[in-house]
Amino acid sequence: MEKVNLGQKFDLIEEYWDPKIVGELNGQMVKIAKIQGEFIWHLHEDAEEFFYLFQGSMSIRLRDKDVALGEGEFFIVPRGVEHKPVAEEEAWIVMFEPAGTLNTGNVESELTRKGLEFL
Amino acid sequence: MEKVNLGQKFDLIEEYWDPKIVGELNGQMVKIAKIQGEFIWHLHEDAEEFFYLFQGSMSIRLRDKDVALGEGEFFIVPRGVEHKPVAEEEAWIVMFEPAGTLNTGNVESELTRKGLEFL
Repeated sequence: MEKVNLGQKFDLIEEYWDPKIVGELNGQMVKIAKIQGEFIWHLHEDAEEFFYLFQGSMSIRLRDKDVALGEGEFFIVPRGVEHKPVAEEEAWIVMFEPAGTLNTGNVESELTRKGLEFL
Repeated sequence: MEKVNLGQKFDLIEEYWDPKIVGELNGQMVKIAKIQGEFIWHLHEDAEEFFYLFQGSMSIRLRDKDVALGEGEFFIVPRGVEHKPVAEEEAWIVMFEPAGTLNTGNVESELTRKGLEFL
C-alpha cells in the first residue's frame, strides 16, 4: 500500500525491452519498460494491450499504419492485431495488460521475457 | 484504433468530479477526471482502483494515512479500503478500473455518476 513514482522506477531499469512490473490490480499488471530500436512483430490473441508513452517518442507499427506516440499519449492495441513497437531514441513506456500477457505474444524470441520481476 | 492524447482529452472536461472514459481494454476502463476540493469517503468491494496523477497534486486519504501524489505518481487502492480523494487545487487524474466500477463505490451521493460517456 505504497504509492509508486514512475520516474524513480524507470531509473532502476538498465536494459532495453526488459519490462518490469510496478503494480497489479484486478488481474491486470502495470508494467514499465525502456525501449530503443525495433521490437519484433507479434500479437496477443487473448488480450488488448495498452501503451502509454511517459517520456521520449515512439511508434507502434501496425500492418496498415504507424501510430506515432508523443509524451502523454496512449494507444490500445486490439487483441489479435500484429504490432511492432519501435523507438529511434530511448523511450519510457507504461503498459497495462492481463497478468499472464507475454511481451512477445505469439512469438518465441530472444526478446521473450518470462517471470517478470516486480520493481 | 486511434491514439489518445490525454492533455487534449482533459481540455474537454468542464466539471470537477465528473469522470469520462477514454479507453477500454480487457473489461477495464481508462477514465480521466478533473478534481478539486474533497470527494466523499467510499470503497469498492469488488475492485482495486488505480489513480495516476497526470497534472497538479492531490492526496488519497485512507483511514490510517494520507497518500500524497505528485505528477507521475500512482497509487492502487485495495478493494474494500475506504478512501477519499482530495485536491486543494485543480488536479488531473487518470484511473484504471473494471468497467462497472462506480465512482462513489458503496455510497450513493449527489456526486455519483452513472452511465459515463466516452470522450
